[in-house]
Amino acid sequence: MKLYYAPDTCSLAVWISLEWLGANYEVEKANLGSEEYKKINPLGSVPALETDGGKIKTELGAIITFLAEKYPEMNLGPDDSIEDRFLFNQLILLISSDLHPSFGPIFAPKRYTLDTDEESLDKIRKAAYPRIDSILSYIDTLLGDRDHIYKDKKTVLDAYLFILSGWAEFTPKSWTEYPNIKRFREKLLKDEKVKYVLENQK
Amino acid sequence: MKLYYAPDTCSLAVWISLEWLGANYEVEKANLGSEEYKKINPLGSVPALETDGGKIKTELGAIITFLAEKYPEMNLGPDDSIEDRFLFNQLILLISSDLHPSFGPIFAPKRYTLDTDEESLDKIRKAAYPRIDSILSYIDTLLGDRDHIYKDKKTVLDAYLFILSGWAEFTPKSWTEYPNIKRFREKLLKDEKVKYVLENQK
Ligand SMILES: N[C@@H](CCC(=O)N[C@@H](CS)C(=O)NCC(=O)O)C(=O)O
Ligand SMILES: N[C@@H](CCC(=O)N[C@@H](CS)C(=O)NCC(=O)O)C(=O)O
Repeated sequence: MKLYYAPDTCSLAVWISLEWLGANYEVEKANLGSEEYKKINPLGSVPALETDGGKIKTELGAIITFLAEKYPEMNLGPDDSIEDRFLFNQLILLISSDLHPSFGPIFAPKRYTLDTDEESLDKIRKAAYPRIDSILSYIDTLLGDRDHIYKDKKTVLDAYLFILSGWAEFTPKSWTEYPNIKRFREKLLKDEKVKYVLENQK
Repeated sequence: MKLYYAPDTCSLAVWISLEWLGANYEVEKANLGSEEYKKINPLGSVPALETDGGKIKTELGAIITFLAEKYPEMNLGPDDSIEDRFLFNQLILLISSDLHPSFGPIFAPKRYTLDTDEESLDKIRKAAYPRIDSILSYIDTLLGDRDHIYKDKKTVLDAYLFILSGWAEFTPKSWTEYPNIKRFREKLLKDEKVKYVLENQK
């Protein structure tokens, strides 16, 4: 398998998942914005995963669910009941369809207005802060005193939440101000595989 | 079960799914923005589904996957293989984490800037059009000449895509300008259950 990634992006969650699963894989830095990369993912975003048949898989939440299922012996996916699969999918969607898009205006404010002056772009960034804060506060409550976002179990979702919650440092309220997210992230910052990915991604 | 919905929103996709599945359910119009509704969904959005235990389920993609699995005899979920589940999840995420957020600036431009004048808000709306168009064009290609977004099979995802692709009418490029989406939607506009929901949602 080959993971197309870009430094400091959500795609690192797939890389960490591959490490946790002990998968046989390689990584390639995507040339974001290039026509060449659009042949791999027509929407131009990372992650994309080339699986052994040469087929390209996109959409982070679907990729890590697929990987967890591909390596069942590692037990990094949901437990086996309809309610467990629901909870797992719900958390994926909370991260990918609520939390992730709330950061869009911070990273790429120019996509959100036709104005190009710095003052207007700054107003775009600032308008995003309350929404990010309300979602992170909600996730902090969901975490409670657990070390994992899905029940009390280590899953690939921990890698996903680890990467995305770290982005709070690009807002006035750092992730260290959310007590449960702080504890969750500080523990993962000591994980050998997480450290390996953070060091090798640049 | 009770579905909390709001007129003309994504939540109608859950209502259509409930109809297609022959589920026993009721609906309640959510008072969006109220403190009362935030007790149901802390993020304030629809859909929310109260299941028989009184528990609240949120996140559209997870809810319709759950419902399809709850009524297996209706066969409106993915086929039973790891690749099929991947494809199903990938499509959910394409709709919920790429397509849905791309409409945010059209429906609620005030959330995307601190500016409040109509001219600035209009620039927010207009900046969203190219992204919406590129995602809908991609989905049009994925659909090809099929009548269903997942393989050649009717699933709850058809209801999801039906509702969201219809929002193109709030952009300069209507859904009728995407040939495969046009065919897909025109067929569903004749579906008895779809007609029932569209008529009863106001
Ligand atoms: N819905 C996609 C979103 C992926 C996404 O937005 N990735 C970002 C990095 S975190 C990206 O590639 N941005 C570059 C771009 O959109 O040009 C997923 O969940 O995989
Ligand atoms: N990620 C959520 C998003 C739900 C969502 O944004 N719903 C919209 C209607 S389409 C809503 O309730 N908006 C009202 C609000 O956010 O105040 C899901 O997929 O269920």
